[in-house]
Amino acid sequence: MNDPIEELVSLLSRLPGVGERTAARLTYFILGSDRQYALSLGKAVAEIHDRVKRCRVCGNFSGDDLCSICADPRRDPTLVCVVARPPDVTAMERGASFRGRYHVLHGLLSPLDGMGPDKLPLQPILDRIAGDAVREVIIATPLSVDGEATALYIAEQIRPLGVRCSRIASGLPHGSELEYADSVTLGLALKGRSSMNKRDE
Amino acid sequence: MNDPIEELVSLLSRLPGVGERTAARLTYFILGSDRQYALSLGKAVAEIHDRVKRCRVCGNFSGDDLCSICADPRRDPTLVCVVARPPDVTAMERGASFRGRYHVLHGLLSPLDGMGPDKLPLQPILDRIAGDAVREVIIATPLSVDGEATALYIAEQIRPLGVRCSRIASGLPHGSELEYADSVTLGLALKGRSSMNKRDE
Repeated sequence: MNDPIEELVSLLSRLPGVGERTAARLTYFILGSDRQYALSLGKAVAEIHDRVKRCRVCGNFSGDDLCSICADPRRDPTLVCVVARPPDVTAMERGASFRGRYHVLHGLLSPLDGMGPDKLPLQPILDRIAGDAVREVIIATPLSVDGEATALYIAEQIRPLGVRCSRIASGLPHGSELEYADSVTLGLALKGRSSMNKRDE
Repeated sequence: MNDPIEELVSLLSRLPGVGERTAARLTYFILGSDRQYALSLGKAVAEIHDRVKRCRVCGNFSGDDLCSICADPRRDPTLVCVVARPPDVTAMERGASFRGRYHVLHGLLSPLDGMGPDKLPLQPILDRIAGDAVREVIIATPLSVDGEATALYIAEQIRPLGVRCSRIASGLPHGSELEYADSVTLGLALKGRSSMNKRDE
């Protein structure tokens, strides 16, 4: 019989950002807290894969067949933001500046990792462009090599449909100093500059 | 039906040092990792209270009736170190400089929190002093107000038994600078100074 404490410590230390010491601290916390909490947490973890579905429209994780954003009639269905992973939706929603809907790829093109164009679920979004009369697809994949490649590939696939397709801006983060910006970011910030003349929109 | 993701995030964010964002990151990690991991982790958390017993000798958490330290014949049973909580044993063991055994109080005297002397499990250690022919009790409760009060109380209870009773040293941590030490610590370090004359032991 394994030591149950060591076993839980070892399982917890596989979580991101959780080392052996933190895992031990969490284990003792769970042991020290009431039994009902341990039961609820354990059950929630064990059942998460069964309880979480993927929204049949956008592909995001959801407790229901249709996620809360796709089910919300106040969200504009003609504006679709394409993201790589479910936490990206959470990040976008934090700002509350986007009132359209999402499409979650659950990955990026990455030939070296076996993620070829055939594994990227693009058909659902192509179908939505026709069905929901989408007027703009905003590609919000990360500003990494894989993210950029994926954005270019999606834009290419969408082009024949004649719908507007845009890419989120790349530039200096809010509040940052030029002094500490890397040259690629500075270059992109220059290239993506917007007009400050009042006449322009 | 609650959202299973929100439910898990909320349960995880009750863990120490885990905020809402970290909880979300852990949740998505669990969702993204294989199903078997989620099942194992969930089971280990849910069952921890049932599987972890308290050692019948020292009171420390243990998978068995007798903890691995109390079961180890190489550990000196005549030297007992009293600590407040199970993680304190782990901390002591990390150093490997102590080869005796432990007694875990699972708490400290704290009248304001309802922890009076009647709730401190001292009888087992008084029994051990007689039964195991203990020659020294080292009190390693924390150097806090409650820890010091508990140490004094235990020393008082042990005194009639005529066994040696000591307190771990208080002073400057290894590698620390006097400049940054608080005055109480400095005072204790002075008071607890040890002789550097070769003659002394």
